[in-house]
Amino acid sequence: MESRESTKTMSRRQLLARGGKIAIAGSVAAAATGSIGFLTGCGSSSETGTGTAAMTEDLPWPYEKFTAADIRKAQSTAHDNWFEGFCTYAVLSGIVSVLREKVGGPYDQFPIKAFIFAHGGTAGWGGTCGTLIGAGIAASLVAGPQKGEEIVNEVMRYYSDTELPVFKPDNPKAYIKTVSKSDCPVCHLSVGKWMTKEGVGFLSAQQMERCGRLSGDVAGRTLELLNDYADQKFAVTQKAPAFTLGMPTQTNCTECHGESVPTIPKPGGGESLLVSGH
Amino acid sequence: MESRESTKTMSRRQLLARGGKIAIAGSVAAAATGSIGFLTGCGSSSETGTGTAAMTEDLPWPYEKFTAADIRKAQSTAHDNWFEGFCTYAVLSGIVSVLREKVGGPYDQFPIKAFIFAHGGTAGWGGTCGTLIGAGIAASLVAGPQKGEEIVNEVMRYYSDTELPVFKPDNPKAYIKTVSKSDCPVCHLSVGKWMTKEGVGFLSAQQMERCGRLSGDVAGRTLELLNDYADQKFAVTQKAPAFTLGMPTQTNCTECHGESVPTIPKPGGGESLLVSGH
Repeated sequence: MESRESTKTMSRRQLLARGGKIAIAGSVAAAATGSIGFLTGCGSSSETGTGTAAMTEDLPWPYEKFTAADIRKAQSTAHDNWFEGFCTYAVLSGIVSVLREKVGGPYDQFPIKAFIFAHGGTAGWGGTCGTLIGAGIAASLVAGPQKGEEIVNEVMRYYSDTELPVFKPDNPKAYIKTVSKSDCPVCHLSVGKWMTKEGVGFLSAQQMERCGRLSGDVAGRTLELLNDYADQKFAVTQKAPAFTLGMPTQTNCTECHGESVPTIPKPGGGESLLVSGH
Repeated sequence: MESRESTKTMSRRQLLARGGKIAIAGSVAAAATGSIGFLTGCGSSSETGTGTAAMTEDLPWPYEKFTAADIRKAQSTAHDNWFEGFCTYAVLSGIVSVLREKVGGPYDQFPIKAFIFAHGGTAGWGGTCGTLIGAGIAASLVAGPQKGEEIVNEVMRYYSDTELPVFKPDNPKAYIKTVSKSDCPVCHLSVGKWMTKEGVGFLSAQQMERCGRLSGDVAGRTLELLNDYADQKFAVTQKAPAFTLGMPTQTNCTECHGESVPTIPKPGGGESLLVSGH
């Protein structure tokens, strides 16, 4: 059974050419090939949704641009809700709670508590920061899977490259003094660097306040980009790292690998896709 | 504004005692305190859902135990759908497609394409393996947020500790010979170790087939645990690592840190929560 298909490797171009059935990483593939199809029937539109009031599996769902006050409200809810259900729930409930007021319809029935598990890098295992999972879900509901992924890719770069948190809540639970740059989207490293700089431990009042404010930051950045999307002004600034570095990865290989960045075989040949030290 | 609350740290016990509003990491908190509340109104039941036919934000949703044939069908769909929308979509659509046949109702309207972005460790950034995000969503819909998180914690341990993939699809897209143990739930390391052992690169036919089969494995393990849950036989075997190691993290610190595992301050004091080499 295993030998039914050959062992030959497939180039990215060959893969992308497979009848439009699959186009890797949405925008990246679109940029590479000129095609904008991601999944059949999904994501090529830059229009906001015009869905019915009822829940539907068809995306995107309707969106109304957030005012500055709406964004502030979503951020405040995100901060406060961190203390109810942690990071993924914080960002998602912050955005969806305002969408329920502004749009209603499908957002009313969307089970936002089903994503709590993604906190702490997924069930506390320290992987992808849960705020980014919340951001990706909200962006995909509003903008569809292709644009949603493009938007979360931008949010992940903001998250990695910015000294955070900067959001100042109306109802802080603790005083914190530190901002720090994570240089990656991974919970373990992001919160670890911040805790080291602040001099506090995990589940300290300060760490929890930091993650609550960070949820506000991520919700805010996601909404800025969704407003750009609604104005047809959203544009990808950088490709997803999987397709610039030839591997699902963050962009700064040497942070973990030191000088010895491993090489991996190139499809169809023995060359390296990774440049040592890149 | 920042000084509205004091800088004092909060112990885990104090946090948990905050009126039942928050209980860290569901089962872990429950085990520590004897309380089973996670979020108000959520997750304390071990019964399967009895929801209405319509989509609702209330969890859990109805579930009917999967037969061996149902599980095989979900796994096959997961494998095949990897090539339509990658890993998160693969696992989620594999499980939900069978739930739509067996249960219908809310699953018919659940927007499964809204989670495609989580592939490749979230938009290809190499964080938490997307299969585990799909597993967590499906488990949380079926079992509610607390049990859903407990279930995905078990799936993550299976994922990390098992030589995978073992699922044999009816429709393989390539021949592969390698199984490997990831020792972590992170895409970059999991697929990297496998590719190195198989001697192939990213987006090779073999790598894609491996990730498709892995999606079948994760869907299958999730469904075994959901069947246990339906039989009221599901039990947590190990706490989430965030609460045994005092940090959101995988369990094998020395794989990344070598012998020099950093220490972090303990809430309220200068002690270390991490034991070097643990």
